[in-house]
Amino acid sequence: MVPAAADKRYGTRRCTCGVDIHAHIVPATFPSYLKGPRPTGWPSTEAAQPCHRHVVIDGRNYRTVSDRCWDVPKRLSDMEHMGLSLQAISAMPELMSYWMDAAPADELLRYINDQIAIMVDDSAGRLVGLGAVPLQDMDLALAELRRLMGNPGFAGVQLGSNVNGKPIGAPEFDPFFEAAEELGAAVFVHAVRPAGQDRLVGPTQLQQVLAYPGEVGLAAASVICSNLMLRWPRLRIAFSHGGGTLGLLLPRLEEGRRVFPALQDSIAMSPTEQARRLFYDALVYDEPTLRHLTSLFGETQIMVGTDYPFNFHERNPVERIEAAFADEATRRWLLHDNAATFLGRNARPAT
Amino acid sequence: MVPAAADKRYGTRRCTCGVDIHAHIVPATFPSYLKGPRPTGWPSTEAAQPCHRHVVIDGRNYRTVSDRCWDVPKRLSDMEHMGLSLQAISAMPELMSYWMDAAPADELLRYINDQIAIMVDDSAGRLVGLGAVPLQDMDLALAELRRLMGNPGFAGVQLGSNVNGKPIGAPEFDPFFEAAEELGAAVFVHAVRPAGQDRLVGPTQLQQVLAYPGEVGLAAASVICSNLMLRWPRLRIAFSHGGGTLGLLLPRLEEGRRVFPALQDSIAMSPTEQARRLFYDALVYDEPTLRHLTSLFGETQIMVGTDYPFNFHERNPVERIEAAFADEATRRWLLHDNAATFLGRNARPAT
Repeated sequence: MVPAAADKRYGTRRCTCGVDIHAHIVPATFPSYLKGPRPTGWPSTEAAQPCHRHVVIDGRNYRTVSDRCWDVPKRLSDMEHMGLSLQAISAMPELMSYWMDAAPADELLRYINDQIAIMVDDSAGRLVGLGAVPLQDMDLALAELRRLMGNPGFAGVQLGSNVNGKPIGAPEFDPFFEAAEELGAAVFVHAVRPAGQDRLVGPTQLQQVLAYPGEVGLAAASVICSNLMLRWPRLRIAFSHGGGTLGLLLPRLEEGRRVFPALQDSIAMSPTEQARRLFYDALVYDEPTLRHLTSLFGETQIMVGTDYPFNFHERNPVERIEAAFADEATRRWLLHDNAATFLGRNARPAT
Repeated sequence: MVPAAADKRYGTRRCTCGVDIHAHIVPATFPSYLKGPRPTGWPSTEAAQPCHRHVVIDGRNYRTVSDRCWDVPKRLSDMEHMGLSLQAISAMPELMSYWMDAAPADELLRYINDQIAIMVDDSAGRLVGLGAVPLQDMDLALAELRRLMGNPGFAGVQLGSNVNGKPIGAPEFDPFFEAAEELGAAVFVHAVRPAGQDRLVGPTQLQQVLAYPGEVGLAAASVICSNLMLRWPRLRIAFSHGGGTLGLLLPRLEEGRRVFPALQDSIAMSPTEQARRLFYDALVYDEPTLRHLTSLFGETQIMVGTDYPFNFHERNPVERIEAAFADEATRRWLLHDNAATFLGRNARPAT
């Protein structure tokens, strides 16, 4: 495979050792929906500037994306320049389509998952899939989860932080987590349609910049408040964007549990202890913040995450971790060992 | 004045030097509304267990509060045991009543502000007021602000983080901030009716434990995104609960501004630089978190905040800061110098 021209924005690295658990794909095209009128939310793509396509949803250009969303050789070349040996790929979050009728959503997600499988097959072992499931219908979601986990190209799934407003720690999602633990599926939780959008003053990009972290933080907190890791202790679940705001919610939740009997009754174990059983990506764009979160969550719980290939992504994920930590063992945990554990690529190292 | 019996939950301190900018009051009683049917949201109180009263709003017990909400001698005794020389008192946030019709809200807030004034008068200089204004009506809000600032018992006002869903950085509140700067009013922003309540899984207390920080974080971010401190550089504005989640939003906002031209255009100065011109309380219940935020926001920007006298409050605010920082100068900033600056009690010390 001939490497594509390097993106000049990436530095040149000697080692290629990072494992990225947070990167997205968009198929170059979507099929037409043939069973009736096009369902609300069904996407299509249209030609844009060279190497780009518009993703059109309900007649609106949702986002213009580069061909790195579907072009495997360009992605592998960029990974080489970013110092990444392996990347877990998941759908652009808006494509998770929890708000679509379940039957067409299931059809759409199967198509997207099949595209992910093709990209993984074309990657000579450098990509692994995190599929999508229609969580608005538990039976369909469980069937698709089982289909995915029968394909060795998938390590697990990406979930949205909420399903039509219900946080993923809500009891109605218990059957999904039970099956994910049983099947050994890694679960990567990404912000989608965040709370707090009416609290933003400024351009629309603030939704992903400011509302995503709060959304992820509350999703992670919902998992802690419902004692998810005590009920499914072998589950491997990770949260995007460094867990969002969780790091600043956690001390207050810890103190709240000390003060309020209702929280002592409902939260079965220290929130901090529970938080140290979840995984997080390192996508926080700041070394002091990364050190603070690593100290809080544990150096065995944080992994490379880039948000590649969207405009707002971490271009130097390996350098970021090396700049934050001088210790070789810590670097090794964050750069690849933790991700290997999360993705089920090795037995959990002794700590 | 005979000191009341000490609350045994407080430690005994040698020095009494802390200045607390975050503490609340509830009047023991509210007047009846005499101009017509009781407006929606108009509060009353009812006898509860000894030394407590229920705050009843729309026929529902909103919260049962202790007499420390209105009893000045007990408050001064507790302050002594908590190591506090001065406390800024503001209404229980739900009483800010932005959702009430403006005319009765104005009447209610004037009553509450007059009760605050009486408590301040009874405190021999140990209490100072942060009044409330009906921000749902700018003319009434400005009139009440001017009335308050004519009383030396008031240092400024408490604002909610949003007014019926509008974050306080929204342009419609510009006239208020212009007047606050002109009048030298300290502005303390507290979470109220937070975003994200539908993202919580568990008891109702999670609203204040988990949703308040995100709400405050987005309010502070709205002030940064609208360049408030560039437009009114002499304004003194503080955010409750350590700025909530702002500390984890800030690096992402900084990077987002580097990446998105729309944010470069709309945000006129580095978000981090702007954040270092805002004030915050230290109410985060955790020393590593307090150190991280102090490093991020600056040691001249963080002050004691306790949330006294509600159940969920910091009982050892001075010890918390002394445990977090060994350096005497840093302790002095956080314990009293910054609060003196914020409250307008001295000229801003040279840094």
